Amino acid sequence: MNWAHLISHRETGQTIQGALRQSIIGAIGDGRLSAGQQMPPSRTLAEQVGVARNTIIAVYEELVARGYLISTQRRGYFVDRNAGALAVNENEVSAKIAPAQAIWSERFAITPAAFRNISKPANWQEYRYPFIYGQVDPELFPIAVWRTCSRDALGRSAVNYWAADHAVDDDPLLIEQICRQILPQHGVFARPEEVLITLGSQHGLYLLSQLLVRPDDTVGIEEPGYTDARNIFLLSRGQIRGVPVDRDGLRLGPWLDGLRYVVVTPAHQCPTMVTMPNQRRQALLDWARTTDTVLIEDDYEGETRFDASMPALKSMDRDGRVIYLGTLSKVLAPGVRIGFMVAPEAVICEARALRRLMHRSAPLNNQRTAAIFLAEGHCQGLVRALRAALHDRWQAVCAAVAVDLPDFQRSQSTGGSSIWLTCPSDIDPQKLYAAARERSVLFEPGDAFFAHPPATRHIRLGLSSIPADRIPEGVRALADAVRQVRSDLP
Amino acid sequence: MNWAHLISHRETGQTIQGALRQSIIGAIGDGRLSAGQQMPPSRTLAEQVGVARNTIIAVYEELVARGYLISTQRRGYFVDRNAGALAVNENEVSAKIAPAQAIWSERFAITPAAFRNISKPANWQEYRYPFIYGQVDPELFPIAVWRTCSRDALGRSAVNYWAADHAVDDDPLLIEQICRQILPQHGVFARPEEVLITLGSQHGLYLLSQLLVRPDDTVGIEEPGYTDARNIFLLSRGQIRGVPVDRDGLRLGPWLDGLRYVVVTPAHQCPTMVTMPNQRRQALLDWARTTDTVLIEDDYEGETRFDASMPALKSMDRDGRVIYLGTLSKVLAPGVRIGFMVAPEAVICEARALRRLMHRSAPLNNQRTAAIFLAEGHCQGLVRALRAALHDRWQAVCAAVAVDLPDFQRSQSTGGSSIWLTCPSDIDPQKLYAAARERSVLFEPGDAFFAHPPATRHIRLGLSSIPADRIPEGVRALADAVRQVRSDLP
Repeated sequence: MNWAHLISHRETGQTIQGALRQSIIGAIGDGRLSAGQQMPPSRTLAEQVGVARNTIIAVYEELVARGYLISTQRRGYFVDRNAGALAVNENEVSAKIAPAQAIWSERFAITPAAFRNISKPANWQEYRYPFIYGQVDPELFPIAVWRTCSRDALGRSAVNYWAADHAVDDDPLLIEQICRQILPQHGVFARPEEVLITLGSQHGLYLLSQLLVRPDDTVGIEEPGYTDARNIFLLSRGQIRGVPVDRDGLRLGPWLDGLRYVVVTPAHQCPTMVTMPNQRRQALLDWARTTDTVLIEDDYEGETRFDASMPALKSMDRDGRVIYLGTLSKVLAPGVRIGFMVAPEAVICEARALRRLMHRSAPLNNQRTAAIFLAEGHCQGLVRALRAALHDRWQAVCAAVAVDLPDFQRSQSTGGSSIWLTCPSDIDPQKLYAAARERSVLFEPGDAFFAHPPATRHIRLGLSSIPADRIPEGVRALADAVRQVRSDLP
Repeated sequence: MNWAHLISHRETGQTIQGALRQSIIGAIGDGRLSAGQQMPPSRTLAEQVGVARNTIIAVYEELVARGYLISTQRRGYFVDRNAGALAVNENEVSAKIAPAQAIWSERFAITPAAFRNISKPANWQEYRYPFIYGQVDPELFPIAVWRTCSRDALGRSAVNYWAADHAVDDDPLLIEQICRQILPQHGVFARPEEVLITLGSQHGLYLLSQLLVRPDDTVGIEEPGYTDARNIFLLSRGQIRGVPVDRDGLRLGPWLDGLRYVVVTPAHQCPTMVTMPNQRRQALLDWARTTDTVLIEDDYEGETRFDASMPALKSMDRDGRVIYLGTLSKVLAPGVRIGFMVAPEAVICEARALRRLMHRSAPLNNQRTAAIFLAEGHCQGLVRALRAALHDRWQAVCAAVAVDLPDFQRSQSTGGSSIWLTCPSDIDPQKLYAAARERSVLFEPGDAFFAHPPATRHIRLGLSSIPADRIPEGVRALADAVRQVRSDLP
């Protein structure tokens, strides 16, 4: 070490001893001198710095007294093992240690916190008219039944199963229930080896984005589409491309050329809620086969669709090129986080291995509780109740919008847990959002669903958390907000 | 489309009509002809193929009769929208449609299923002497207490909280308990903004590997070290490098030059179980500061260490360059999957956003149950019981190995839930593994912990699932297996 360089700076009015002491503490503080390191002999340092040897000895002894150095009879002075911590706490070196802190902004490989996404106020439950999406209505959650199932999952033999570290396997009882009870309702028949339990359908998208997308691959994402699907594939190795949507859902056309994967929401296109008709589905599958493309079907509200007559796209898939993602979040509450992926065994095998590295399995006590819930037949009744409640709300909101927001155009849907509205050209959704909140109305501005927000502006009214009888009032309050925005116009 | 090329192959003994029909069905089956596509005029095709026009018309009519084509009065013949599915089902084209199936092996961007890792037989609970690691002993899991906490987490107001979709936030009650009760035991004091709930400490490694590691970065992984840590960082954008370990843990030296991150297990080095002494810790921190490196401290059995006197490396960190990963898996059972990450707020913020994209939050019902469990003070008693049980087992295994396996060298540790043995040079761990299983003894061969297995061979005896009173017998049975391996030698 170049000691002369280390001890070179002397501030105005500082004694030579003070400058030396501060320099050594500074070097300890920023790590240039490390614990246990031997200090140069006083004679050597005196020569290098150009001071009397006694000056160096006095500085060393002062540093021993202050705990930075230790002196040994024969071998000289060493940096104390706690000196680093001491030095950092020392005010006089605080300016020097700042560079020792990691500069995190320069370290991130990705910065997902900067991604656009849909957010809602944390206190949304305090709003009288929460037209938001993705929340279950806590009143509809079957607490008593879930409590019983949860208790049964805590029997000794069940605990012996789930308390263990099943690094790779899912609860076979849950897989069985999903294969027997959930999937066939969507026309999907899968073997257990073709099913993986995920932490919600979004987790399935993430696993696939990491597993399948290579640097040269381009993934088609509906535009407008699910914001986090776009964000997830932005994190993958490949590229993404927006695919336009019309009133029949994802559109076929030249924009599909060269895509290797397409994420599609055929049942209820997110966010427009339109349903893809059978003919378009067949054409999409035909195209996928011709071009060797894989379709990722996100059936994010499969269980609560009350227009459940149309089977999944996956049910029409004859050569295993549709991967189906489902979830129980809309039935069992999102907080429980249970979803599933149906895919060819080779894909499930790799997805399972990736999931093992990410976090091993999905919490097994929840898997077992959900398995019991399904096995005891509680799901069908709950689904019926949820569908009925959503149907009432959907009818209420459609009727109210037709009356009170006549110049808002509603995207044609046959159901679902939200509606999608196109605003009149004189209404700015951001201003409307603010005016609505003043009236205790929450909705979701539509821009977040677009990679490139268009000139026409949209809003989404979610139905999962607002009771049907409050919807007419809520829409009237929203219409009030529209009037205010208009009256504020210059 | 080159029709002559499409319809070119005629098998021996096949009529020209049969060959044409089969070719068209094959092209429909593998997607070269897609639904709705217009067939060429019979005159055109007849010329291209070199047959009479009536032959083509006969083939078209046959295909209409069989549902592959539809004919319209004026415009000619089109591929029926269901023809693809029909063709796939047709036996005669089964050979031709195989290429329509996605070839998954060519699609994977990563193939984590091929990674080496530690596995154990699924039926490990049937072994009398399961010297395995990472499982809790189900007998020690406090079912009754957990059941009570679980019930309390299912009260209406608690459900109102956790049933909702908290896309980004953790349960504030759990964060508070971790900050107040868990972390201070390790000398770590963190604000809530510096803590993220993970699905076990491994999940923390995964989040960091994706978040922080850039293509030019190299990550140091202990050698030997935790297999899945190596695998996780193999999936990152950067490179990994093995860092040697001695009896004081991770070694400082030139192999650290240029590393940007180091994953370190100072408390109980995985798998050797040695503890890093204070002086080495300080030197490591000093080195990290000097070189602007970030240390990732994996305290994977923080709560159950019975030699808990030494605080975490993180407690000595003065400039926020140690990220601490902890877990409650060893206390609350791995199946519940609750861990935590302590890091500067900037890191937690991005990790939270990444977790949101991966799977939103960790299941909130489990978070709330764990929070109640901690808040009601059940953790300390449980930890005491677990530590006492592990201490008994550790003493039993050390004593038994000294007596019955005298030529196996035990790595010097002061506790922990496993021991690490070096085999005598004449013992092949794979042969020993097989001989041991015949005696109902399970252990873990050590090679999986090395990126480059060395000439000296090791085994790990895990203690988390075998009762203390069965350990002496188990070690004797293992000694029997050693004798058998020796007697089998040529």
